[in-house]
Amino acid sequence: MGSIYLGLLHYPIYNRNGDIITTAVTNFDIHDIARTSRTYGLKKYFIINPLQSQLDLAAEILDYWQNGAGAKYNADRKEAFHILQTVPDLADAVHSISVAEGQKPIIVATDARNYGNSVSYRKLRQQIETTSNPLLLLFGTGWGIEKTLVSSFDYLLEPIYGCSDYNHLPVRAAVAIILDRLLGEDWWNSSDVK
Amino acid sequence: MGSIYLGLLHYPIYNRNGDIITTAVTNFDIHDIARTSRTYGLKKYFIINPLQSQLDLAAEILDYWQNGAGAKYNADRKEAFHILQTVPDLADAVHSISVAEGQKPIIVATDARNYGNSVSYRKLRQQIETTSNPLLLLFGTGWGIEKTLVSSFDYLLEPIYGCSDYNHLPVRAAVAIILDRLLGEDWWNSSDVK
Repeated sequence: MGSIYLGLLHYPIYNRNGDIITTAVTNFDIHDIARTSRTYGLKKYFIINPLQSQLDLAAEILDYWQNGAGAKYNADRKEAFHILQTVPDLADAVHSISVAEGQKPIIVATDARNYGNSVSYRKLRQQIETTSNPLLLLFGTGWGIEKTLVSSFDYLLEPIYGCSDYNHLPVRAAVAIILDRLLGEDWWNSSDVK
Repeated sequence: MGSIYLGLLHYPIYNRNGDIITTAVTNFDIHDIARTSRTYGLKKYFIINPLQSQLDLAAEILDYWQNGAGAKYNADRKEAFHILQTVPDLADAVHSISVAEGQKPIIVATDARNYGNSVSYRKLRQQIETTSNPLLLLFGTGWGIEKTLVSSFDYLLEPIYGCSDYNHLPVRAAVAIILDRLLGEDWWNSSDVK
């Protein structure tokens, strides 16, 4: 199994009207995704945003929890934030992984839409278990990653279907579910069912 | 399959020092857990807090997204909030379910700790599929639900182990993972692996 990385993409992203925008960094995404990523053993969580003002905001929040009052108040949070890194562009994240791992990561996009070329959770989980390639899991914000960019990656993961006609999971919940499906214990094989 | 309900408990909860406290309602928990619960087809999401000031705060946020500017801005959010209800006490949630369903719910607590009497995800999933009983899934806030209360429920779910030495999932992520394990599609049975 290779190292697993996560990227949260803020550009190019669809807004509700289908326009391409840069989304804002949110406090929610920083905290929850860092904690979940750390729990599932990820090597790094990249916040990818081209706007310097947004990276500065993320850095300020990070500094509070790593060096400020937050670090004393909550050491667990400090530890989760160790894996967080802000970069302006996806290429910077890929470069950083390539330097650390000695090879380029396989890039897997996630999307609530199905573009027809998607890989199943079972197949990707099996691939993770059997190869040593680093993997970068990319999540979008807003109304999803711009589609020509999505189709340029190595894989697109199947959508999460839930079990209702409503399909508006927060990205924080999608991250949790997807990391659990790909990397969590194989609870469905437990033998305690009579 | 019976109706599934979720409760987020704010008292009696441990703080970091092991004291029993009432935790605050957070905007995070309201939004993310409502959206995830709605995606997985839950019938109701109860926010359980004995403090009237906290219930008022939740009601104010709810009103903004159901009747205020938020309802126009984001109809999906409005829909997710339809299933949210605030109550001062667990007994009120149980009573409300009993009235709606004509029978008391089976109460399943979730906790990051393992108290030795836990039920597996596989077993509970199978029980959900084969019985018509309503089920109330209870999540704690802060550092978890007070332990004598936990042991008074019908079942305690196994902890989520993740895959690292770090075990500090946000409750919002725990909700997402647990609803997916109990109610999500059986992705591990997909047949596209060669």
